Amino acid sequence: MRENTARSLVLPVAPTRGRLRPLGLDEVRITGGFWARRRHVNATATLAHCRDWMEREGWTGNFRAAAKGRIDRDRRGREFADSEVYKLLEAMAWEGAAYDEDVAALTGTISPAQHPDGYLNTAFGRPGQPPRYSDLEWGHELYCHGHLVQAGVAQARSRGEGELARIARRAADHVCDTFGPGGIQGVCGHPEIETALVELARLTGEQRYLDQAALFVERRGHGTLADIEFGRAYYQDDVPVRRAEVLRGHAVRALYLTAGAVDVAVETGDDALLAATVRQWEATVARRTYLTGGMGSHHRDESFGDDFVLPPDRAYSETCAGVASVMLAWRLLLATGEPRFADLAERTLFNVIATSPAEDGRSFFYANTLHRRHRGVAPPTDRVSPRADSGLRAPWFAVSCCPTNVARTLAQLPAYLATTDGDGVQLHQYADAELSTSLADGQGVALRVRTDYPSGGTVTVRIGRSPARPWTLSLRVPGWTAGATARLVDPDGKQRTVTPGTAQLTRTFRPGDEIRLELPVAPRWIRADPRVDAARGTVAVQRGPLVYCAESTDLPGGHEADAIRVDPSTAPQDGPGGSVVAEGGLAGPRDTTWPYQPLDQATAPATARTAITLVPYHSWANRGPSTMRVWLPTTPPPTTPTRR
Amino acid sequence: MRENTARSLVLPVAPTRGRLRPLGLDEVRITGGFWARRRHVNATATLAHCRDWMEREGWTGNFRAAAKGRIDRDRRGREFADSEVYKLLEAMAWEGAAYDEDVAALTGTISPAQHPDGYLNTAFGRPGQPPRYSDLEWGHELYCHGHLVQAGVAQARSRGEGELARIARRAADHVCDTFGPGGIQGVCGHPEIETALVELARLTGEQRYLDQAALFVERRGHGTLADIEFGRAYYQDDVPVRRAEVLRGHAVRALYLTAGAVDVAVETGDDALLAATVRQWEATVARRTYLTGGMGSHHRDESFGDDFVLPPDRAYSETCAGVASVMLAWRLLLATGEPRFADLAERTLFNVIATSPAEDGRSFFYANTLHRRHRGVAPPTDRVSPRADSGLRAPWFAVSCCPTNVARTLAQLPAYLATTDGDGVQLHQYADAELSTSLADGQGVALRVRTDYPSGGTVTVRIGRSPARPWTLSLRVPGWTAGATARLVDPDGKQRTVTPGTAQLTRTFRPGDEIRLELPVAPRWIRADPRVDAARGTVAVQRGPLVYCAESTDLPGGHEADAIRVDPSTAPQDGPGGSVVAEGGLAGPRDTTWPYQPLDQATAPATARTAITLVPYHSWANRGPSTMRVWLPTTPPPTTPTRR
Repeated sequence: MRENTARSLVLPVAPTRGRLRPLGLDEVRITGGFWARRRHVNATATLAHCRDWMEREGWTGNFRAAAKGRIDRDRRGREFADSEVYKLLEAMAWEGAAYDEDVAALTGTISPAQHPDGYLNTAFGRPGQPPRYSDLEWGHELYCHGHLVQAGVAQARSRGEGELARIARRAADHVCDTFGPGGIQGVCGHPEIETALVELARLTGEQRYLDQAALFVERRGHGTLADIEFGRAYYQDDVPVRRAEVLRGHAVRALYLTAGAVDVAVETGDDALLAATVRQWEATVARRTYLTGGMGSHHRDESFGDDFVLPPDRAYSETCAGVASVMLAWRLLLATGEPRFADLAERTLFNVIATSPAEDGRSFFYANTLHRRHRGVAPPTDRVSPRADSGLRAPWFAVSCCPTNVARTLAQLPAYLATTDGDGVQLHQYADAELSTSLADGQGVALRVRTDYPSGGTVTVRIGRSPARPWTLSLRVPGWTAGATARLVDPDGKQRTVTPGTAQLTRTFRPGDEIRLELPVAPRWIRADPRVDAARGTVAVQRGPLVYCAESTDLPGGHEADAIRVDPSTAPQDGPGGSVVAEGGLAGPRDTTWPYQPLDQATAPATARTAITLVPYHSWANRGPSTMRVWLPTTPPPTTPTRR
Repeated sequence: MRENTARSLVLPVAPTRGRLRPLGLDEVRITGGFWARRRHVNATATLAHCRDWMEREGWTGNFRAAAKGRIDRDRRGREFADSEVYKLLEAMAWEGAAYDEDVAALTGTISPAQHPDGYLNTAFGRPGQPPRYSDLEWGHELYCHGHLVQAGVAQARSRGEGELARIARRAADHVCDTFGPGGIQGVCGHPEIETALVELARLTGEQRYLDQAALFVERRGHGTLADIEFGRAYYQDDVPVRRAEVLRGHAVRALYLTAGAVDVAVETGDDALLAATVRQWEATVARRTYLTGGMGSHHRDESFGDDFVLPPDRAYSETCAGVASVMLAWRLLLATGEPRFADLAERTLFNVIATSPAEDGRSFFYANTLHRRHRGVAPPTDRVSPRADSGLRAPWFAVSCCPTNVARTLAQLPAYLATTDGDGVQLHQYADAELSTSLADGQGVALRVRTDYPSGGTVTVRIGRSPARPWTLSLRVPGWTAGATARLVDPDGKQRTVTPGTAQLTRTFRPGDEIRLELPVAPRWIRADPRVDAARGTVAVQRGPLVYCAESTDLPGGHEADAIRVDPSTAPQDGPGGSVVAEGGLAGPRDTTWPYQPLDQATAPATARTAITLVPYHSWANRGPSTMRVWLPTTPPPTTPTRR
């Protein structure tokens, strides 16, 4: 691993070691296209929406009630409601100066509720409340402290250390004082503090925060938490982190913990721990991940299922698990430099993170199903919704972790586009953007990326500034191009075929040089591993990184999505407005008294041949109640050559 | 509907009106075969097993603690633990004289805990406990009272009214006093009191019990219970019973409620209410029922899923839902005389009820999955298990409703075999049995049924006693015979083909006459409706009423059940020892880094051709940890003719 030199960039994640060095939010600007639109909506609508709902639901009011000594009677929301305020603060901090006033106001609200010793939580520890840390399983106190620390780090890096950062640091000191080697020998039921403490260590250079994070990672898996109905796997307290083989239990918890383990491994140079996280990621991606990148298939405990238990119709695929998966993938990419991590991050960004918020940024999916069987009703706009009803996006939830998690992710998104390794620049995610950074020798590099990705597959990189010596421009060739042809065109117009992984160009670039990456975004049929029982006999469509779906809104004759049969022997084609059109038919559902028949008596319903319009999955449910499918039944079923 | 004359038979369900009149446990004796073995195990092992675990877990002790005034400190088990003692008492009462001492002892334990006004519950109402009926959503007080009443009815009918029946009646009076028209305008979160009160009305002739049951049925669906996270549909408080279109929410609650609604409809002559229950049953059976007859596909809230959401690998199919479904089907059969209700009862008895207990009757499935992906570990024998881990049967659960529910069902099973309509006898379920009853004119009929059903398909009915006038013997021709040939052979040896429904023979039978029903039990491939997404591209095997499964125990080379591919173009054949053998292959799983591939790049794993042994589903997991599948992937996929 490489030692990163200390820098004061606006970095969401700033490892001091690792293969790649991230760029700061002050080094990358997204200037147009898919993510620019979403970031604009986030900055101009979602942040205020979240602030208003928290005020209305009393979650910000909890801090005022605590300061006034009335919290025992007046507290509102769930035990982790404080964390939403912190996540919103983090998002606002990354957004920068425009939100300085909001950050100051919210900081002024939370500040008086902090105890003199740094402890800050509105649900525990005051007269009439349960004592501090009396419920490590469900209390979420360290989880909340973790999000407070993340918000403080964001402020310090983005706007310079202020009151929020000072509150966060006092809280972190309290955590170290209380849970250190001589303190409470416990962990929090919901991981999060781990990665927060490492980031604070990176910001401040204070070893104690890193030590405490490492202690939390090592302590987990030894059964210090109670054996609840869901089992200790629910909060990863069943197996020590470095011995686990696959992610399991509550998906968000598992992913946050593993992100924290990567952080600890990188900072402490613990290659064995890093290898353990990579191994778990590999197994999870190979067997426990939806086509969208979504993770978590059980509604009951928001958990990963067994290997290959990935039902589209009961996909939980929590938005926060998508956020957490991107956090983990980004850390593994920085540590190893391997493009497979950016592949999964891309898939998850386009098909989970981008799916959650509505076009107006004022309602959200909490769970991201891949199959909706009946049209839902529009959720109430004036009160909180159940989190798992996936028919339409809702403005707010009783457990409303997802909106603020999406908000802080979109706010920091530019930082995920590119890195430097000292000898060059690596482009990982493609968007219309401007980049300006410096190589290890201090020489500046400026790039202008132009693309309408993911609609189009052409990415043009124009060199703005460059040292007068050779350096390497690396471009990720996404894994989804496998089996199709991707090309790289150098500044001299020479083109070559590139395969999934990394395409590199080493030369002395000159200002005005243009490099072009041409990615084959034509729509393709995708088939699932036969062990994904719930997708047997179906195909899906992917176009570039985008997963597509069929929505009843686009079907003729009032048909529902379940009527669709597609013919996989004909390739899907580009349709108008970003749609894809597939050959297929619509089968009229026939009701029977008993849905199981002897095979020799069974008949398939007749299908009327028609073209089926598909739309990007992230865009579904923006046109009123609908039914929807990602995996489309085939007729006749697809046959694949047998490998002997 | 026909008015039944008052009788004093040992009847679990004794409607005063309806198409068919049930036979009492004193009129039917199961003498051998499948159910005789299970009933023997139930009577000689399961009942004592349940009694011992309840004592050990402190659930019987709760009554002693209540009587001693120490229940606020000492109570153990969940809020509904009392009901297990009552269900065990009910089972013991149906078993008859052999359990008189146990019934007396347990009755002596519960009796001192009853309040002077008839209220009886160890979780509420005493100093230090929540007040009576302060938590109708989750408190289960009326549910417990309902099971107490059922136990009392069983004692009164089976052994003559004793102390248990008197306790039950006092409790029922208390319920009527408290929840009558001028009382609490509420319902219990868990239905059960409805059907119990109707049965008590039938026993005693007291109108007030029927009125109270009708009131509870009508009161539900108007949102008097809180709108919990699972929604009011969880406890059927979302839509009034007579307006609902399909069963929804918690499966056991939905089925108990509907059984109670049938009871009320029958006793009050409310044809509209009866029609509503039939309509809901039809929709539920057509769209929300597993091949096994199991109901409930969500682990999260133990609920029915949406239409056709029937994942084999996440089947909840709670044993108690099977019990409740048989209860409902039996009531609808008595009310209407339609054999389709007996069809579902048969399917559920053989594939859910018979599956739950282990061969020794000392461990149980709570959830009955149709697909087990990884071998479980043997559950602890010395402590309670999580209810939903379906890998192996467990001796007891923290929520242990299923063992006693199976026990009371097996104890009353003979009553489900046959009915009379006054003009004849109807055989609904087939077992080696002796029947003796009387027709409407008081003339006696005695029958001897000989069969090794479901192993064999031949059922021989020998007339023992018969009036010297024509009467009608009706035999159910199961729905599963559709498309194959069933025959009825009359006492003269004349045979005719019969089709699903009812085969009737009207004549003047003479003692010694033999009637033979020949049912085609050869194994057959079964296919699911294409809307059951989770079973697409698979087939199952049914042999007679038995659903079969493949268990890894029977596979060569240490293969797991997920390796199986079968060839549905070759019919499955009978194998040794009740097994079935199918042509197929075993596919070695190939791990990939990402389980989704472009269709043109995908290859199917090679399969080595081999015979696949299948065993009855009810017998699985009796030979140690295993993996298992009911629905078997096909290779090549099955094609079915298109209906134009």
